[in-house]
Amino acid sequence: MTDPPVTPVAFTEQDYAARMDRAARDAAATGLTGLLIAPGPDLLRLCGYRPATPTERLTLLVLAAGSEPRLLVPASERPDAEAAPGAGALRISAWGHGQDPYAAAAGLLRPHGRYGISDSTWAPHLLGLQEALPSATYRPLTTALPMLRAIKDEHEVARLAAAGAAADAVYEEILSVRFTGRRETELAADLAHLLRRHGHSQVDFTVVGSGPNGANPRHRAAERTIAVGDMVVLDFAGLKDGYGADTTRTVHVGAPTDEERQVHEIVRAAQQAAFEAVRPDVPCEEIDRVARGVIEDAGYGEYVVHRTGHGIGVTTREPPYLVEGERQPLAPGMCFSIEPGVYLPGRFGVRIEDVVTCTETGGRRLNTTPHEMAIVT
Amino acid sequence: MTDPPVTPVAFTEQDYAARMDRAARDAAATGLTGLLIAPGPDLLRLCGYRPATPTERLTLLVLAAGSEPRLLVPASERPDAEAAPGAGALRISAWGHGQDPYAAAAGLLRPHGRYGISDSTWAPHLLGLQEALPSATYRPLTTALPMLRAIKDEHEVARLAAAGAAADAVYEEILSVRFTGRRETELAADLAHLLRRHGHSQVDFTVVGSGPNGANPRHRAAERTIAVGDMVVLDFAGLKDGYGADTTRTVHVGAPTDEERQVHEIVRAAQQAAFEAVRPDVPCEEIDRVARGVIEDAGYGEYVVHRTGHGIGVTTREPPYLVEGERQPLAPGMCFSIEPGVYLPGRFGVRIEDVVTCTETGGRRLNTTPHEMAIVT
Repeated sequence: MTDPPVTPVAFTEQDYAARMDRAARDAAATGLTGLLIAPGPDLLRLCGYRPATPTERLTLLVLAAGSEPRLLVPASERPDAEAAPGAGALRISAWGHGQDPYAAAAGLLRPHGRYGISDSTWAPHLLGLQEALPSATYRPLTTALPMLRAIKDEHEVARLAAAGAAADAVYEEILSVRFTGRRETELAADLAHLLRRHGHSQVDFTVVGSGPNGANPRHRAAERTIAVGDMVVLDFAGLKDGYGADTTRTVHVGAPTDEERQVHEIVRAAQQAAFEAVRPDVPCEEIDRVARGVIEDAGYGEYVVHRTGHGIGVTTREPPYLVEGERQPLAPGMCFSIEPGVYLPGRFGVRIEDVVTCTETGGRRLNTTPHEMAIVT
Repeated sequence: MTDPPVTPVAFTEQDYAARMDRAARDAAATGLTGLLIAPGPDLLRLCGYRPATPTERLTLLVLAAGSEPRLLVPASERPDAEAAPGAGALRISAWGHGQDPYAAAAGLLRPHGRYGISDSTWAPHLLGLQEALPSATYRPLTTALPMLRAIKDEHEVARLAAAGAAADAVYEEILSVRFTGRRETELAADLAHLLRRHGHSQVDFTVVGSGPNGANPRHRAAERTIAVGDMVVLDFAGLKDGYGADTTRTVHVGAPTDEERQVHEIVRAAQQAAFEAVRPDVPCEEIDRVARGVIEDAGYGEYVVHRTGHGIGVTTREPPYLVEGERQPLAPGMCFSIEPGVYLPGRFGVRIEDVVTCTETGGRRLNTTPHEMAIVT
């Protein structure tokens, strides 16, 4: 059985217009003439358009402060673009059979412009633009405007919350599944199946790290058979209605040892302290420091091997990153994972992860299943 | 229930070595110094490596005739790269924290080299390479070496055949499903579910074009309710074990009219004639002409609105294209769709599509369900 489909609040033309306007103004504020957005997560979020297939045929959104947003598409794809929910907020033009799409794009650009170009733009398109407009310059959006998608509007937060609630339901169901004697890959398939059943249209990953495999934070799932006495890291992520969920809980097969309980409790406390530190204007790195500090104080600092979190939105990993050196202040609407972990090589690992959104007054969790170590069979 | 998993013949280190060697020699033959391959279908096919997540951190395969293949990866992803099935056929080097990945890449390249760069390379990587090695030049692989993936080895053809057999099983099952009174989107969901159940790990699209919707070859599935008397185009594609299937059959709800029968028969004959024309050294455009000719001779030429086919492999749409102007000769190992159609605006459409591979002696179909118009309820 699948969950009954719940239609999320549709994004309106005004939502898209506001996003494009904000992006153009942010670009101008960083000294860019404008933004060039090819198919990918930025295009989808800014104007609601995703071509049916990624293709070598140029589709390009051009944003510049004070100008109407322009979308250039292949003529045969014009009806699809016109049907996009944000189409009313932009002017669509098409290049036809036999036309040079890069000459058409150049007509929308300033010859000496400084443009930010979306990360997922394919190389042939950049080469074509460089040839058509050799005096313009191009900068990757990752470096020029890393926070382009970071602040979500309320409808976006609602979708992230719905994706998180579905992931929480998956976690609750997996607790009653048998672990002992089954391979990690089987449990990983169960998680993927459950995510789809609860409405995720895309499964990004389902990690099952049992015993020593859990001590490798890059582990996915292997042929190892799970046994009584194993700590098991469960980390899974996907997209529901276009927005991501990413959550981790660490469970135990049968009764844990005192040390296992202790390490789990340290990670739980680190996650809680980091969550409580969330509020506007706190730098991203501060959240990382708080989580790390709890673990260091408990004597496990050398077993912290990754940053504390990453942003989430139309992808399950994007800026902002909660990491030492990231001075970007948190702001209301930012959504990110908080996922501290402790990894004891050759033995076991513990990680606890919620997606959290920053509000005017503090953090709000978008995953709400208990953090206590669940015991599975 | 899901089909029992069938493990395909694993690609060996020798398979990958042969593919990389061939690609490097093809590049040299077209005057290129070498090939630069970022994550995507080319990388996966050439060395079996796909990073866990597409990322802004540089991963780059460098191929040049007479040189050992080199793969540059972020240090933290080195274990993943070393575990790739083709890893033994290349030399892996890693760039570490704080290092400039483009300087590291430049060390593997010739300062004045002419490189082909894979289409799916993200713009920031091309910009980084251009800055690190300003005298080198870059050409998109689509234009420099369009047939890079076109000729499949026998293990690849076996995977395409297995993906096609799974799609055929989907078609056979959908025939016993009720069409009348259900929306296109519901049937499309059925097709997606069946593809997954038969082993497809990725569903690229499931088209259900009933009545007038079938007359738009770009239609996917809408809220239209299917009724007795509708012609219904069913076109679905996905990946199984990394290789694609893409098949179309046009069915009818209840008894068809004489005209519907006639149009269906014309498309069937066009597909058959095009299939029979497949053999080595025949230009791609000739297959298109044969299909088109049958339909024109029957008086429906003005209702042919798209090319006859496209290649298929690790993606479900890639070169070669069966289209007027494509003089590329067919060669043994090429795999492509043959999918002529007739589209009567506002009324109905008919399309019949098989994936076909070119052998030494002619074509071999990788979809084998009947072409006769099936009647559904």
